[in-house]
Amino acid sequence: MSRIEQQMEFMREIDGLKKVERQTYLKDASRKENDAEHSWHLAMMALLMQEHANETIDLLHVISMVLIHDIVELDAGDTYAYDTEGNATKRERELAAAERIFSILPEDQAKYFRSLWDEFEEEETAEARFAHVLDNIQPMILNDASDGKAWKEHQVKLSQILQRNQNTAKGSKAVWKYAREQILEKHIAEGNILLDVPDEKTGSVFC
Amino acid sequence: MSRIEQQMEFMREIDGLKKVERQTYLKDASRKENDAEHSWHLAMMALLMQEHANETIDLLHVISMVLIHDIVELDAGDTYAYDTEGNATKRERELAAAERIFSILPEDQAKYFRSLWDEFEEEETAEARFAHVLDNIQPMILNDASDGKAWKEHQVKLSQILQRNQNTAKGSKAVWKYAREQILEKHIAEGNILLDVPDEKTGSVFC
Repeated sequence: MSRIEQQMEFMREIDGLKKVERQTYLKDASRKENDAEHSWHLAMMALLMQEHANETIDLLHVISMVLIHDIVELDAGDTYAYDTEGNATKRERELAAAERIFSILPEDQAKYFRSLWDEFEEEETAEARFAHVLDNIQPMILNDASDGKAWKEHQVKLSQILQRNQNTAKGSKAVWKYAREQILEKHIAEGNILLDVPDEKTGSVFC
Repeated sequence: MSRIEQQMEFMREIDGLKKVERQTYLKDASRKENDAEHSWHLAMMALLMQEHANETIDLLHVISMVLIHDIVELDAGDTYAYDTEGNATKRERELAAAERIFSILPEDQAKYFRSLWDEFEEEETAEARFAHVLDNIQPMILNDASDGKAWKEHQVKLSQILQRNQNTAKGSKAVWKYAREQILEKHIAEGNILLDVPDEKTGSVFC
C-alpha cells in the first residue's frame, strides 16, 4: 500500500472511536458521550485554556496528544476512571491495541503516534501534564452540567476524585482551583459526590 | 465573569455540537455522524496528511480552524452540501450564530475564533485551502466505506461533487487524486453517484 492508502485506511479504522461509549453524559444528560466527541472537546479546551497551564507548553503537541490519546480504546474499550477491576487489566489491553492500530500507518507515523501516546501515558512532560488536566476536568464540566448524573450512578467518592486528580494542580493551578471551588464543592454539598475524607485532608490535597 | 468562567461557559455551550447531525453516515452506516465527531476526524486527518498539502502550511493553524469550523452550526444547523435551498440562507444564519456564540468568550479570544472562522470561510490562505480539502474529502471516505449510502439517499450527481470540489486540487493534488481514482470512479461505476457530465468534462476537472 502507498503512504496515502495507509493513511486513508487509518482514517477508516479510527472512525470506530465514534462508537466507543464513555461513562460521562452530555450536558443535557440525554446520552453518554463517545471517545471521538470527548477528544474533540479536549482539543477545544486546549485551544481555549492554554493560558492556564503552569508551564510553557507547545500547543500543537498538546492538541496532537489529546486527539490520539483514546485511539487504543478502539480495541481496549473505555475503562471508567473509578472501575478498579477494569483498571487492573487496562494497561495490558491498551498496549496490545497500540501495537495493532498504530501499525496500520506508515512506519514513521506509527512511531510518532506511539511516542505521542506513550508521552501522554507517562505524564512526565509539561505537555502531557496539561493534557491530563484537560482529560480529567472536561468530564467534570459535563458531570456538573448534567447535575452529577454519572457521579451519582457510580456513587463516586471525593477520595477517588482527589486520587485521580493528584497531579492536576501540577499541570494547571487555575483550572484545578476552578474545578474545586466551582464544581466539586457544590456537588459535595448536594451529595452527588460522597464525602468520605475529612475536610482537612481535602483541603491539603487542594492546596 | 472571569476569563476562566467565560471559557468554561463556552466549553458547556459547544457541547451542543455533539447533537448537530450531519448527512454523512459512519463507516458501518449504523447512524449519521455529528459535528463534534466530524471535527475530530478532520483534525486527525490534518495530523495524518499534512505532507500532502500543495503549499507549506502551519499545522496548528489548520487544526485550530477545523476544530472550530462548524461551531456556528450550533444555531444554524448543518446544511447539506447539496441542499440548494438551505445553502441560499446558510451564510446569513451562520453569521448570526458566529456573533452570538463567539461573544461568550473573552474579547481577545472571541476575535481570534471569529478570525479563524472567517479565514476558513474565505478560503484564501494555504491553511484554509487545506482545511477545505479535509472538510470535502472526509465525508467521501465515509461515503465510500458505507457503500455510498448518503450519496444514494440524496441522489447526488457527479457535477455537484465536482462543483463542491473545484478547489480541492488547489489544496492537495495528492488527496484529490486519491479521492478521484480510489473513491469517485468506483461509485460512479456502481451507480451510487449519478454520472451527469460527459467524461471529457470530468477528466478536465480532475486534471
